[in-house]
Amino acid sequence: VKAKAAVLARFGEPLEVREYPAPEKPEPGAALVRVEMAGICGTDVHLWQGQLPIPLPVILGHETAGRIEALGAGLEKDWLGRPLSPGDRVGWASSIVCGTCYYCRLKRQPTRCVARKAYGISYRADEPPHLHGGYAEYIVLRPGTAIFRLPDGLATEAVVGAGCALWTVIHGIERTGLSWGDVVVVQGSGPVGLAAVAVAREAGAARIIVTGGPEHRLERARRFGADVTIDVDAVPHFDRKRAVLNATPGGYGADVVIECVGHPAAVPEGMEYCRDGGKMLVLGQYGDAGPTPMHPHVITRKQIQLHGSWGFEPRHVLAALEFLERCGQRYPFGETITHRFGIDQANEALAATREWRAGKSVIVP
Amino acid sequence: VKAKAAVLARFGEPLEVREYPAPEKPEPGAALVRVEMAGICGTDVHLWQGQLPIPLPVILGHETAGRIEALGAGLEKDWLGRPLSPGDRVGWASSIVCGTCYYCRLKRQPTRCVARKAYGISYRADEPPHLHGGYAEYIVLRPGTAIFRLPDGLATEAVVGAGCALWTVIHGIERTGLSWGDVVVVQGSGPVGLAAVAVAREAGAARIIVTGGPEHRLERARRFGADVTIDVDAVPHFDRKRAVLNATPGGYGADVVIECVGHPAAVPEGMEYCRDGGKMLVLGQYGDAGPTPMHPHVITRKQIQLHGSWGFEPRHVLAALEFLERCGQRYPFGETITHRFGIDQANEALAATREWRAGKSVIVP
Amino acid sequence: VKAKAAVLARFGEPLEVREYPAPEKPEPGAALVRVEMAGICGTDVHLWQGQLPIPLPVILGHETAGRIEALGAGLEKDWLGRPLSPGDRVGWASSIVCGTCYYCRLKRQPTRCVARKAYGISYRADEPPHLHGGYAEYIVLRPGTAIFRLPDGLATEAVVGAGCALWTVIHGIERTGLSWGDVVVVQGSGPVGLAAVAVAREAGAARIIVTGGPEHRLERARRFGADVTIDVDAVPHFDRKRAVLNATPGGYGADVVIECVGHPAAVPEGMEYCRDGGKMLVLGQYGDAGPTPMHPHVITRKQIQLHGSWGFEPRHVLAALEFLERCGQRYPFGETITHRFGIDQANEALAATREWRAGKSVIVP
Amino acid sequence: VKAKAAVLARFGEPLEVREYPAPEKPEPGAALVRVEMAGICGTDVHLWQGQLPIPLPVILGHETAGRIEALGAGLEKDWLGRPLSPGDRVGWASSIVCGTCYYCRLKRQPTRCVARKAYGISYRADEPPHLHGGYAEYIVLRPGTAIFRLPDGLATEAVVGAGCALWTVIHGIERTGLSWGDVVVVQGSGPVGLAAVAVAREAGAARIIVTGGPEHRLERARRFGADVTIDVDAVPHFDRKRAVLNATPGGYGADVVIECVGHPAAVPEGMEYCRDGGKMLVLGQYGDAGPTPMHPHVITRKQIQLHGSWGFEPRHVLAALEFLERCGQRYPFGETITHRFGIDQANEALAATREWRAGKSVIVP
Repeated sequence: VKAKAAVLARFGEPLEVREYPAPEKPEPGAALVRVEMAGICGTDVHLWQGQLPIPLPVILGHETAGRIEALGAGLEKDWLGRPLSPGDRVGWASSIVCGTCYYCRLKRQPTRCVARKAYGISYRADEPPHLHGGYAEYIVLRPGTAIFRLPDGLATEAVVGAGCALWTVIHGIERTGLSWGDVVVVQGSGPVGLAAVAVAREAGAARIIVTGGPEHRLERARRFGADVTIDVDAVPHFDRKRAVLNATPGGYGADVVIECVGHPAAVPEGMEYCRDGGKMLVLGQYGDAGPTPMHPHVITRKQIQLHGSWGFEPRHVLAALEFLERCGQRYPFGETITHRFGIDQANEALAATREWRAGKSVIVP
Repeated sequence: VKAKAAVLARFGEPLEVREYPAPEKPEPGAALVRVEMAGICGTDVHLWQGQLPIPLPVILGHETAGRIEALGAGLEKDWLGRPLSPGDRVGWASSIVCGTCYYCRLKRQPTRCVARKAYGISYRADEPPHLHGGYAEYIVLRPGTAIFRLPDGLATEAVVGAGCALWTVIHGIERTGLSWGDVVVVQGSGPVGLAAVAVAREAGAARIIVTGGPEHRLERARRFGADVTIDVDAVPHFDRKRAVLNATPGGYGADVVIECVGHPAAVPEGMEYCRDGGKMLVLGQYGDAGPTPMHPHVITRKQIQLHGSWGFEPRHVLAALEFLERCGQRYPFGETITHRFGIDQANEALAATREWRAGKSVIVP
Repeated sequence: VKAKAAVLARFGEPLEVREYPAPEKPEPGAALVRVEMAGICGTDVHLWQGQLPIPLPVILGHETAGRIEALGAGLEKDWLGRPLSPGDRVGWASSIVCGTCYYCRLKRQPTRCVARKAYGISYRADEPPHLHGGYAEYIVLRPGTAIFRLPDGLATEAVVGAGCALWTVIHGIERTGLSWGDVVVVQGSGPVGLAAVAVAREAGAARIIVTGGPEHRLERARRFGADVTIDVDAVPHFDRKRAVLNATPGGYGADVVIECVGHPAAVPEGMEYCRDGGKMLVLGQYGDAGPTPMHPHVITRKQIQLHGSWGFEPRHVLAALEFLERCGQRYPFGETITHRFGIDQANEALAATREWRAGKSVIVP
Repeated sequence: VKAKAAVLARFGEPLEVREYPAPEKPEPGAALVRVEMAGICGTDVHLWQGQLPIPLPVILGHETAGRIEALGAGLEKDWLGRPLSPGDRVGWASSIVCGTCYYCRLKRQPTRCVARKAYGISYRADEPPHLHGGYAEYIVLRPGTAIFRLPDGLATEAVVGAGCALWTVIHGIERTGLSWGDVVVVQGSGPVGLAAVAVAREAGAARIIVTGGPEHRLERARRFGADVTIDVDAVPHFDRKRAVLNATPGGYGADVVIECVGHPAAVPEGMEYCRDGGKMLVLGQYGDAGPTPMHPHVITRKQIQLHGSWGFEPRHVLAALEFLERCGQRYPFGETITHRFGIDQANEALAATREWRAGKSVIVP
């Protein structure tokens, strides 16, 4: 079989549609999956712009769901030990770790595995088996991939609509800690911000204030549980700080600020939204967009904490799937998918994401 | 009685020696203490330079020990409930909090009390009872001060030599957490850095690497337990990073970095010394020395934590006194006092501290 | 004014109605409050049975709301700093601590204050000002009591219906930690168990299983958010264990077990409901009902944690009031009040509570 | 080659010396190791007495060091990635986990792996490759064993003298948390208690009180850093409680109690040694010695925490080896080996351990 794929061959230039052979029989432990839907993540835009060091050419797409076409020898169960068969609808953790390095073994922190690789990011498309990204008709899952059979009641739209944003948020909130009754500020109203609102709401936040835009995103944030939204384009910086603080009890600021923006300047701004002794999760700085002026004195004086978090582990993907199954009605992630594109339209899909036109864009091969 | 005091009347200008009346009978709950020794803290230099907003004129000096001269009605016990009498040698927590505000009550974080005041910092010398700083012959302790009777075996030199640096370090390490077996980098080899070395060593750090200078301070750091010291003047920035990382097992960086420098640029530099997933205690940024370029992407990607910590509570002063009593032989803080000055020489004392000429300078009235 | 009160004069014998003078002008810092409603707590039954060492005679009643009748000099604000006036409806933390002992100061654990006293428990009714319990027409609040002005939208029924059970649960869950997505077993369906269900639900528990009875209480637990309820009278011990484990994902047991029963045997039973590595909050053992056979090997082998928690601090009372205001519609604690009694009927009120006849019984003077 | 081994064939009966063939070429990933020294652990006595459900016959011995005789194909590196060759002296984690079950994957708690197996405990000696215990001339290490090359400066005596006790203590203290400055009570002065003293001392405990015996063990505990030792045979229960509490500052009890005894009654006794709000690590209850009367009310009222801990992970073995290398001079575990036996004397070795005659007994094949 031939499989079409949208390939990033040069940073900043349009993706090209190429064809690769899909293996009829995957190698032992591997799986061949027919892609049903692939999400466009904000990180894909960063990758396309060359902000992270990755090998080219690459088939983008790291938040994907599909149906098993063929299973390699020995691959009989999913990550939870449930039987796998051709035809099963599945999702999977997009990254694979070595399990033996300093970070995997000694520090139990596999997201920083020195040999970590990710579908749609780390694998060259010009080397067999080629098909290691989601913007394609088929994807080959390597041995060791954490595959999850999707429950019947859980729509593919919900899984891809929540995407890696939800996995990432779950990991970040695990690292930072969020207690029921906390006052929370979420910076950003894109997919990551929306996932942060959903998890914070579900975790019992007393009050959720979102700064972001445009209005159609803020409206969705309110539907997901934000108590207050502030349009960053409508309110200039200084007034914004006042507006955020005024929205917190007593005007002291948030117990937890969750940065889901990605612009470096959002971090010092978020520090202003923290109450003294509060915590800030620096979650959105995936691309390396350079330095920004920060005030270390503020960290000492307000005795705040800044917590970084990178990626996710398979157990966070599982937690996300369980969350979607349990609470999906309250947080209709599937509805955030506003734009669908074919593989041939991958560049339009990227553009829609870059320009924040869409809720969430996906590719349906 | 008249009491001499060194007074900061204008930022950046020499302290002036003035005389104030010492009350024969302190008000109820207060105490009159004859100063035996007052430490010069690096923060005093920041205050003198006007880097923190304080009222003037002020008698500097917030790390002080002395003997009780007179007790106000009702003040009969120290903070631990031990009887107090004239003639007792005492130390005290230099700050007083309201006990009723949002931070004191709801967040149990009295170091950020909205009405916090500190001897040697917050009280005007031109308002009675005038004597609220340590650079003076007498000091008046207000009702509510956490006073500690000093045990006979504990020298005044040790208490003032350790100074507020040790209290601050104990608080900071409590907030950040440091586990036995951790690899620790301490940035800075002044009084705060030295106290950090002592506590990290006592808490079972596997390895302590100190960056600082000049050599006489690094030598003392090694005597206090540093395994490796790196002279920041001898090793330029880029080589320094390599030197620090090479001194950590596997070259991955430290589990915990403790910043005790005070220059904003030390914070992004310290982030480079952290292993992925490590913690950094931003402890030295007391004066507001402005912003510095920082790289939020590093926080996200390395998923590190930055923790601020401000001041201390009475229980940290107690922990410091107990530590000095228990482990003072291993960490001879008294010997760090290399320069002694009279009240009339207070400006020379400040200069010695500013120029890092001294180990620790003190005023002996 | 004369005030009627129901007085426990001898353990195990009927309360007696007595009259005491209500002070027209409370002492400085104190307040005279006309009782609107006083809850009957399960602990009152333990106290009546003599299971805790308290002085007699005592006016029972430690979960009370009322209206300020008169304020002593200097008492002008509530615990949050809001102005207080006669006529204001108020609640208050039922315990008062010394603020200076080892537990208050050094260990920041005021619930174990060595001099802790509580309304309705620790104050003799035969010593002025007599009126220190809730089963009375008036109560005198001592200086230092943490008083909270009740918001207009918050019904007295909700406050007393939630009672000290909610405060206690909030403190206990703070100590033990409960993360969103946890599987929770609540042992007991009385007021404490019900409050545990409410907080666990609000904190994002993935699944809540309640063991208790009788059915009318289980029905209420389900209305408050329990996913599964198991009637302890209908299911014998061995089958109960199987039933509880089967109700947890994979049959491994709960991440967190919250014991709200009070019978010693509930604790070893709860240990069986914990997954390996899980936590158990031992919250219900207020009365000293003696020892029970326990299996320490289970603690080691399953590497579980048992956490005790005693009482609450004012900030937990505040959190409860905020929770009721914010989420009271989802958790209608006011409706749990099924029986109302006059002061003259206090013995019937106690009996209704002892026999679990009631949801919650209250006294309306 | 034939290898002699001491085999437990029937609970409670003498071990028998049998011979098994040692494979010349181990299977891929496995290793053949010539045993240099095998420690007798207290758990071996429990196993011999049939207190844990294990298959028979079994070669006992789970704390062992030896030299690599032959390596199976593909086994080229130790757990840290350092090259392995025949002749290398090695230690290893005695347990192997599946890496895929609920506890390994989802709860990151491999010590409770549902398929966990351990050398000297779980492998039948009558099934090839037979040699899976330390009381033997050779041992076969299965693929997946966490092997550690021993540094030249680290004596085999130190490694086996510290034994699994040190690994277990490091894991337990990690789970419970121990802060520098804590007051610690260690119950028990056998190998586990001694290791607890060493780690608590190294972690900066302010004061360590050991209850145990006989005197030769208490003497060693003092040499390892105990400040106070109390002979449980010389001091009856009630006086013992007073003696322990009197040895803690203020008589309030310990911040952390570490139970290293193994008799169920030690757990309720240890709860009496905890200060209110303190923690107790229930570490010694490996054998199932049945229930003991416990007082759940004490857990609630004192709001203490009990923490269990089972076994260890490879990273704790590594931490132990690093600790021995770093601090072995202060804690001469090698010297605790007081009795050496040949394989033919394995029963005498077990008896010496059972009767607490020895510091530590070992088998030297």
